[in-house]
Formats: sequence, structure tokens, C-alpha cells
Amino acid sequence: MDLLFTLDENYLPRLETLLTSIRLVHPEENFTVYIIHSGIPREKLQALCRDGEKEGFFIRSVKIDGNPFSGLKTTFSYPPQMYYRLLAAEFLPASLHKVLYLDPDILVINPLYRLWDTDISEYLFAAASHTLLTDLPNNINQVRLGTSNDYYNSGVLLMNLDKCREIIDKQQVFDYAEKHSKELILPDQDVMNALYGNLILPIEDAKWNYDARKYDSYMVRSNGKYTMEWVMSNTSILHFCGRDKPWKKSFRKRFKALYRHYMQLTKLYFPTEI
Amino acid sequence: MDLLFTLDENYLPRLETLLTSIRLVHPEENFTVYIIHSGIPREKLQALCRDGEKEGFFIRSVKIDGNPFSGLKTTFSYPPQMYYRLLAAEFLPASLHKVLYLDPDILVINPLYRLWDTDISEYLFAAASHTLLTDLPNNINQVRLGTSNDYYNSGVLLMNLDKCREIIDKQQVFDYAEKHSKELILPDQDVMNALYGNLILPIEDAKWNYDARKYDSYMVRSNGKYTMEWVMSNTSILHFCGRDKPWKKSFRKRFKALYRHYMQLTKLYFPTEI
Repeated sequence: MDLLFTLDENYLPRLETLLTSIRLVHPEENFTVYIIHSGIPREKLQALCRDGEKEGFFIRSVKIDGNPFSGLKTTFSYPPQMYYRLLAAEFLPASLHKVLYLDPDILVINPLYRLWDTDISEYLFAAASHTLLTDLPNNINQVRLGTSNDYYNSGVLLMNLDKCREIIDKQQVFDYAEKHSKELILPDQDVMNALYGNLILPIEDAKWNYDARKYDSYMVRSNGKYTMEWVMSNTSILHFCGRDKPWKKSFRKRFKALYRHYMQLTKLYFPTEI
Repeated sequence: MDLLFTLDENYLPRLETLLTSIRLVHPEENFTVYIIHSGIPREKLQALCRDGEKEGFFIRSVKIDGNPFSGLKTTFSYPPQMYYRLLAAEFLPASLHKVLYLDPDILVINPLYRLWDTDISEYLFAAASHTLLTDLPNNINQVRLGTSNDYYNSGVLLMNLDKCREIIDKQQVFDYAEKHSKELILPDQDVMNALYGNLILPIEDAKWNYDARKYDSYMVRSNGKYTMEWVMSNTSILHFCGRDKPWKKSFRKRFKALYRHYMQLTKLYFPTEI
């Protein structure tokens, strides 16, 4: 299975915790892990590679020096790094056809195989929307971005890289971001939805991008079906969306013990401190 | 490390979940696991051995046929199985000097090495008491059993088997149990405390036998030190004491997500259903 992350060095401890969770729910699997970044120190990457390799993760650093988009017309209201996810196909080996992008504020608590095997041959991405109880956030975003499709969360993206290379137009992405810079709230996610929302295959958020803040809303929406038992048995990707993060002391929400336990396990599976 | 369990076939799924947790927090360790029982079906034991061996658990079944205590004067108000834990040294190989007994309603969430390495050369057991906020349960039990030492929980026992063989007197155990049968609430635990409480090395319950029902009491007792962060970083043995069990749907207490997650992991590490 091929995984993609785009992050800076501050998020490396979170990545290690996420990889620990991926390791333990896929005891037989090996992974190639692409990390697109613009300056994680070499010694930290080396430590990550060393520990990762012992756990079946073959880590490939994709370092982007300077501005990879020079030559294109852009004033960059946002830093170039913001586009690494949406334009990842540009930076990954041409021989790579599919990759699973994950935000680092995630735990994987059940296997990813069924997501990985989803047929996305006709789509750019598979992604989930956090519509939850009402369709309100969806509708607001549809009006805001002038789209008719669901508003997808970009924290989990199964990427059809060939299709991305064929369809995603860098200049169009920059033009859109610049033109709408004042309206964009989550710029790259907004651009993805506005320009390519109709080429995204919807997947079930409760299984593949469960918003860990919203246990009660999931319960209501599902008429009581999505109990803690259900989540622990059926959810694969637990996403700690929002500002309040489970690695911070102030975090007081559900799943804290689980995340904290994985932080402890991380010390055993990625022992080098980075 | 050598582990001991005394259980019947109904508890095998719980044992597998406990072993899964032990496996994941000791990635480099191998274990010999002694199971004292009086009739777990052979095919279930074989499945457990097969799955266990792949995960570094060498499982040794110690089957006790009939009444191993015949020839001793006993009317057995309690079934003979009740004595397997306290008299375990009788049934284990004479070459085995130390073993860690664990109840099956436990998760191990941090390594056991420091407990295992505790010097118990002068004691029968190391064990923790669940004194918690006040010493009330302790005092009640001291009066009830006529002891002056703490009232120890027998769910986690580091056993000095040589000392047990030397000191524990079967006939005395049966005599005590029969004589006091009307006063005993948790018979084997009461007998252990009444007869051998002064030969038990106290260990810290918050680390080695954390009563999972009592998060709030631990917080109060520790003046706010034993937060969820502290527990997840420092507690090794999380004990789901009492009637309400985390594998039951009705369970509504803390650590449910964690236990349920380990139930899922169990399917990956002990795939044969037993």
C-alpha cells in the first residue's frame, strides 16, 4: 500500500503515531510512504527511515526546494506548500498510479484494504464529506463555492494519480486561489471542492474519515446505530479534526485514552526521538 | 517472562484480548503462558497455542482432572477451581520460580518489566490494594478478616513460587475457607489476605492494578496528578474490576474505546475464533 503525507518537521511525532496505528492494524502489510516537504532536517528523516524500515515502512522523502511553481503566474496569497497535496501527482514518481493521502491528525484503527481497493478509475479522488446531522455545512459551502456536489474533507484522499496528471491544471488552481482568496476559508480544500468536486467519488465518512469531535452527532444521524462498539468495529480512519488536538493536555473529548495509548506505543515502535 | 492464568473456556476470548495487549506493548519479548484449568476443550487450546506461538506466546496447558485435593479434609463450600490461583505453585513445574498471575479482565497498556523485576525474595506475592480515596474498604476488610495489613486485590499477583511451596499450607487454606465460609465475600482473595497478607509486598495500584472504574477517585486521591495523560503514560495494568465489563454492550464507563479497539486487534493477532 502506498501512503502520502505532506507535512513539516513539527508534525513528525504525529506522523509516527499515525504510522504506529497503521502498523498494528495491518500486521502483515508493508508500506511505501511518500513524504512531500520543503525542509525537514536530514537527520530527522534518517531517524524516521531507520525506525520505519524495521516496522515495514519504506520511507521516500520528496523534498521540494524553492518555489516549484516559478514560471507560472502566481502571486501566492498562500505559501506554495499549501498546494503540495492537490498537486501531489506532479511530485510523485510517474510510475506511481495510486496513493492514499492522510492528514497527520489521524489514527487508523481498522484495516484500510477496502478503501485502498475502491475503484476510482473514473475519478480524481475518493473522499468523504462531513455532512453529519443536517446538510447545513454542505449547503453553506455549496453556495459559498458555487458548487452542487458535497463539500469534501481533504484530510483523507485516495488519489488516482494518472487522472490527476491528466486533469488538474496548476495554472487553474493558482488562478482560482488568487481570484477567490478573500472567500476561501480552508484554501486548498476549498479549491479542491470548487474546481474538482464533481470528479470526487464520495465515500462514507463514518468509516473512512470519522470526525472524532462528533460522536453524538453520528449517533443521532444514524438513529443510534453508530455506538462506540460500532465505531470501534467499523471505523478505519479516526480523524481529530479541528483545533482541539488529542496530543494536547487541554483535550477533553472522546478517544483521548486511545490516542494517548498510541502515543505511548509510538515510543516502542519508533524509539528514536525526533 | 512467565505468565499464569486460571480460567475456563468462557474466558478464552478475554485472555486473547489480554495477550494481544501484552504482545503489542512488548514487541521484542517472548512469553511462556501457563493456563491452569479443569476442562477447556482440547481443540480450543490447540487453536490458542497455534495463534499464540506465531505471536511469541508459548502456551502450556496445565489440566487438572477431578479433585486434586482429595485426601485432604474438605467439604468444599466453594468449587476446587477456586483454589487454583492460591495453590498454583502446586501445579506448576518445580523448575519455575516466579510467575505473574493476571485476571483475564485486564488490559496491559505499558510494559511489565519493572513489575517483573521486583524483588520478592522475602515475600509470597507482590500485590496491590485498591485503597483509593479513603482507607475505608481497607479498614472494613481488616475488621472483617481480623488482619492488620492492607486488603490486597488478587487480580494481579507476582508470585514467588519457591516461597509459596515452602509456606502455603493447603489444609490450612481449606480449613480457613470452610470455617469462615459465611463471612467470605470474595473467597480466595479473602483467604489470601487473611492467611498470608503479612507476606505480600505492596505495589502501587495506580501502576500495576489500576481499577478502571475509579478514574475520578484516583484523580482526587492524587490531587489531580493521575490525569488521563498520566494513566496512559504510567499505568501498565488496567483492571476492569467489578460486574460491569467493557466487552458488554451495557458498559458506559471510561476506557471503553480502548478495550473495544483491543477486541478488534485480537481478531488480527488471534484470528482463529474460539
